[in-house]
Amino acid sequence: MSPFADNPAAGVGALGELALLRSIRRWLGPAAPLSPHGMGDDTAVTTARANLLTVDSIAHGRHFDDGARPEQVGAKLLKRNLSDIAAMGGTPHDAVLALFLPRNTSLEWLEGFTRGLRDCALAHGTRISGGDLTETDGFLGGALTLTGFSERPLLRTGASIGAAVYVTGVLGGSIRGQHLDFAPRLAEGRFLAARPEVLSCIDVTDGLAKDLPALLGDGLAAALDVASLPASTASRELAADDPERLVDHILGDGEDYELLFTVDAAADYGAFEAAWRAGLSTPLTRIGKIVSRREPGISLLNARDGTPLRTRSGYEHFGQA
Amino acid sequence: MSPFADNPAAGVGALGELALLRSIRRWLGPAAPLSPHGMGDDTAVTTARANLLTVDSIAHGRHFDDGARPEQVGAKLLKRNLSDIAAMGGTPHDAVLALFLPRNTSLEWLEGFTRGLRDCALAHGTRISGGDLTETDGFLGGALTLTGFSERPLLRTGASIGAAVYVTGVLGGSIRGQHLDFAPRLAEGRFLAARPEVLSCIDVTDGLAKDLPALLGDGLAAALDVASLPASTASRELAADDPERLVDHILGDGEDYELLFTVDAAADYGAFEAAWRAGLSTPLTRIGKIVSRREPGISLLNARDGTPLRTRSGYEHFGQA
Repeated sequence: MSPFADNPAAGVGALGELALLRSIRRWLGPAAPLSPHGMGDDTAVTTARANLLTVDSIAHGRHFDDGARPEQVGAKLLKRNLSDIAAMGGTPHDAVLALFLPRNTSLEWLEGFTRGLRDCALAHGTRISGGDLTETDGFLGGALTLTGFSERPLLRTGASIGAAVYVTGVLGGSIRGQHLDFAPRLAEGRFLAARPEVLSCIDVTDGLAKDLPALLGDGLAAALDVASLPASTASRELAADDPERLVDHILGDGEDYELLFTVDAAADYGAFEAAWRAGLSTPLTRIGKIVSRREPGISLLNARDGTPLRTRSGYEHFGQA
Repeated sequence: MSPFADNPAAGVGALGELALLRSIRRWLGPAAPLSPHGMGDDTAVTTARANLLTVDSIAHGRHFDDGARPEQVGAKLLKRNLSDIAAMGGTPHDAVLALFLPRNTSLEWLEGFTRGLRDCALAHGTRISGGDLTETDGFLGGALTLTGFSERPLLRTGASIGAAVYVTGVLGGSIRGQHLDFAPRLAEGRFLAARPEVLSCIDVTDGLAKDLPALLGDGLAAALDVASLPASTASRELAADDPERLVDHILGDGEDYELLFTVDAAADYGAFEAAWRAGLSTPLTRIGKIVSRREPGISLLNARDGTPLRTRSGYEHFGQA
């Protein structure tokens, strides 16, 4: 659905700021608590203990297009942040939303966007506590900031030689729907934070080929068992005519929003995986291990023969890497 | 200074995302703490106790133009949020920043913007703990979210009949410089939160004529002593040719970022004002008092004769009110 109205009367410009804010609050319903815990004051007063703070954005033409339903777009903005909290092993709490809207933003679209945000917030125990509206000359986007709490925040750093590399779910081909319809791995992240053998964690947003190196400290590389990489149905379909591209899709497409993490070399992997399966239905795959880096700049290896893994390098923003 | 580079090599598109993030972190210097307390992980891990959460945005062509130095723009984005924390009587803590940048955003401009943000953050004990970058097709803007703490958050609600209305500083004509160069009233806000006779507070962003009604609950109005309204030098200059417009400038220009608050009718105003002057050098003016509303829709009165105060209604976003 197009976010823009042809008829000025159907755009946000037809309302004043106060009426627009009132509409948004009504659409958010129970996901927008009453002041002082929500909108309506200079800042929201929060009550939950929080030690996590993250922001993620969404822009028309970049993170979504007219093919997306507005409910999916609203949910996606929150889910991108929920995935960040999940990667820290946290529980989400309060959110504030900055919206950038041209005057011709369709009220129908905005209502759908807001209702998608509401349903996602209610499903995850999150509240939209405040916000800010900015009128633009055409740009449509938003930034959502989310707080959360983790008893033991899982960082990107912490991997050591011999650690196993695991990933949740399946990878690749997110453009076919996963980039909108993913489920943030909150329960999975909390499970990981409670397991002392888990060393480090990240969510896969730019593609495993780009995000895995973020887990590798100085002198470390990752040797991947390429045959074990969990391919999504969408990535298999995209590579149907050119099977050699399948690994590119798995490693490079991005927007998987799966958790990628390392487990200490001394851990009992069988017991770890059994505990996972006892509590969680999400697929879990051990895809490789951390090794020492032999060649500068080469951080991903094929475990079978130790050669550098040749892939596209994940989605690169702002052009050339 | 224009935020846009004519030469592609001087724009952010000349860097990859990682190099751009590294540059921003370097420009922020000590205002960007190391991971996990700052950038470099999925979310920032915060340590300070926080119960305030606010977001404010900035957009090129709306909140600043090419006449502004980039350092002023970076500082303004943080100061808009600091002013919100001040209006709650709070102390600011951690910030996260979402930037929306076209590829031709000038690196020189972005460095200045970031250094202005840094200096403002360091001056106020705030940290830029994380962020997000989104490439756009032309829109340049940002949203900054700030946490803070107040032992007794000052809300907009709480005014009662007979309460005095006070404002800090001087009002009007902010377009002449105040909208960029204002000082967030943090010490003043903390003073107010510690005084039990202070009932409610807001910062003046859209103009007193629009922001004062936000302090008025059902059935309340404010009777203003028009002659007492503290006019800025800029507003006097703007109204030099048409003195009748002076009140319009004072009440309607907005972006004053002064604190507007109410003090209980039973308070000793002399003692209150003396305590203010003992600790603070910021001008303080009692401009009126809270009365019961006699006519629906009429919330601002001239104290001299009880007639409705006729003014422009403050800056209205998204067109007609």
